[in-house]
Amino acid sequence: MTAADPNAPFLATCRGRASSRRPLWIMRQAGRYLPEYRAVRQQVSFLEMCHAAEHAAEVTLQPLRRFDLDAAILFTDLLIPVEPMGVGLTYDPGPRLATTVESMDAVRALKIPDPEHDLAPMLDTVRLLRAELPADKALIGFVGAPFTMACYLVEGQGSKNWDATRRLMFAEPKVFDALLDRVVDCLAPLVDALRRAGCDAIQVFDSWASVLSADDYARRAAPRTDALLRTARDAGAVAINYCNGAAQHVDRLAASPAHVTAVDWRLPMREVRRRLPSEMVVQGNLDPTTLFADEATLRAEVRRVCDEAGEGRHIFNLGHGILPQTDPATVAAIIEEVHRC
Amino acid sequence: MTAADPNAPFLATCRGRASSRRPLWIMRQAGRYLPEYRAVRQQVSFLEMCHAAEHAAEVTLQPLRRFDLDAAILFTDLLIPVEPMGVGLTYDPGPRLATTVESMDAVRALKIPDPEHDLAPMLDTVRLLRAELPADKALIGFVGAPFTMACYLVEGQGSKNWDATRRLMFAEPKVFDALLDRVVDCLAPLVDALRRAGCDAIQVFDSWASVLSADDYARRAAPRTDALLRTARDAGAVAINYCNGAAQHVDRLAASPAHVTAVDWRLPMREVRRRLPSEMVVQGNLDPTTLFADEATLRAEVRRVCDEAGEGRHIFNLGHGILPQTDPATVAAIIEEVHRC
Repeated sequence: MTAADPNAPFLATCRGRASSRRPLWIMRQAGRYLPEYRAVRQQVSFLEMCHAAEHAAEVTLQPLRRFDLDAAILFTDLLIPVEPMGVGLTYDPGPRLATTVESMDAVRALKIPDPEHDLAPMLDTVRLLRAELPADKALIGFVGAPFTMACYLVEGQGSKNWDATRRLMFAEPKVFDALLDRVVDCLAPLVDALRRAGCDAIQVFDSWASVLSADDYARRAAPRTDALLRTARDAGAVAINYCNGAAQHVDRLAASPAHVTAVDWRLPMREVRRRLPSEMVVQGNLDPTTLFADEATLRAEVRRVCDEAGEGRHIFNLGHGILPQTDPATVAAIIEEVHRC
Repeated sequence: MTAADPNAPFLATCRGRASSRRPLWIMRQAGRYLPEYRAVRQQVSFLEMCHAAEHAAEVTLQPLRRFDLDAAILFTDLLIPVEPMGVGLTYDPGPRLATTVESMDAVRALKIPDPEHDLAPMLDTVRLLRAELPADKALIGFVGAPFTMACYLVEGQGSKNWDATRRLMFAEPKVFDALLDRVVDCLAPLVDALRRAGCDAIQVFDSWASVLSADDYARRAAPRTDALLRTARDAGAVAINYCNGAAQHVDRLAASPAHVTAVDWRLPMREVRRRLPSEMVVQGNLDPTTLFADEATLRAEVRRVCDEAGEGRHIFNLGHGILPQTDPATVAAIIEEVHRC
């Protein structure tokens, strides 16, 4: 394994060291807003892309060929590990799981994947990427946070408010807690394997923490997210804790073992920055729909985020994935503006 | 019009006066969790129920026959006014609007309803209800908040993140602001008419403010919500400001002209109470999925909410609508527990 330069902007900033510039990457930067991504996607299904290392590596690299980004993020999906856990997975276009997990027996039936065997294409992609990427570009791998994984495992498909998941949490708290613990057991080896294969950082994605009260998040979700963040940290990776719906959770996020706390757009960066410990690096948090504003407004919003985050402990990003309808030219404008801040 | 007794628990509490007990009602208390509601619903469609005063009055009264609630809430839907605004409406089962509003011309084409003419069944329902309800039960009418109405008018159906709505907000801010203003113009006469027909309180429902950043909410959504709250207040009604996704907005909610601020479950009541002015009455905020817990846990959570809200300026409620799968017996347990607090 080659490795990224620890003094390059992304890794230096993540570890709280001085950096030559404010680093940035864009959530879902390898995605449908890029015509070259759509060209690959026309030939193969989403799942085939995830399972074919050469396709996954290709689309991961596409945005870095166009834009001066500081990190690549492995192209995969947070649900890919449910297949070797024993749960069939299709996309239509949203995810559909073949079974749902709502009992202690179903939790116990979830298998713990052996990443090098069961998730070989993902790790092959990482190795391909680390060999291709220059030393000044970091490679980010990711896993779903236990609560977000539990949402899909309980309901089997997307939901607005994940009411059935929260119902299970209250109706069968032991089953629910066992499910969260089982997800940690299933994903911790993957976190380790991603690191060993060449990921410099691991982002734990909690896409659905937004539906939890602050108390339930702190009681149930956060300790299990922290376990995965600690696994990443102990493996020598930078640990990034992304929480969508951070507004009610930011005080608990401040207590996580992550190097970097990444937040959605709902809470202004000044408020996030104020409520996190001063040594914690923050990532975010432009509303992705801001990219549809006129260029002057967009640039002003980019500057506002940077100003509110302050110097030195900020990785610029959106607060959520870039939308498919986005004009790629806006990404170039954002990068130019971030480098002026 | 007869009127509710201003000294009955709900109205006294809303106006900051001493009350014989802590009042409560349950969002969506007239709903599918009640077998008697499902019996009516089997005979007529959802829209027919909204448009037939005798059906709408019947289902409004059903929960008050079963439970010692302090208020009835008019059975209707926040989208009913879009029909006389000129936008066709069906339910399948979620709402489908016949046209979408994405240009200045489309905004200007929205007609301002004459409530007594165009929304006669809704107002007839209010008159029926006020005549039937005892003086110690308040009657709550409601309208959608301008931002939430704009979400449906822009996208024509439900959405997870209302990305297209926020895209319009950034891409065409003048169109978006004009749409919000137009919704205020369309709904203000309805607020007045609901009050004149006999509603003691008007709740403005912002179901989707959760997708807005605190800054965009404060800049665009909140001033228009405030306009409707002020209309209610000026008409002599109690004004209730319900915000789903209050976590990032609570400081702005503190500045609204509402008598009562009603919040979802995400932020603990202690935090909401701490951040609202001491004279502001607060409504909420039990997670509706808590009703699936064992009874001891449910009762403990009810007590926690009441304890955190404190004495005297609290209307107990859920943080969102009661779920269809809920056992009605849990509502009786909640009421008993609230009356012990």
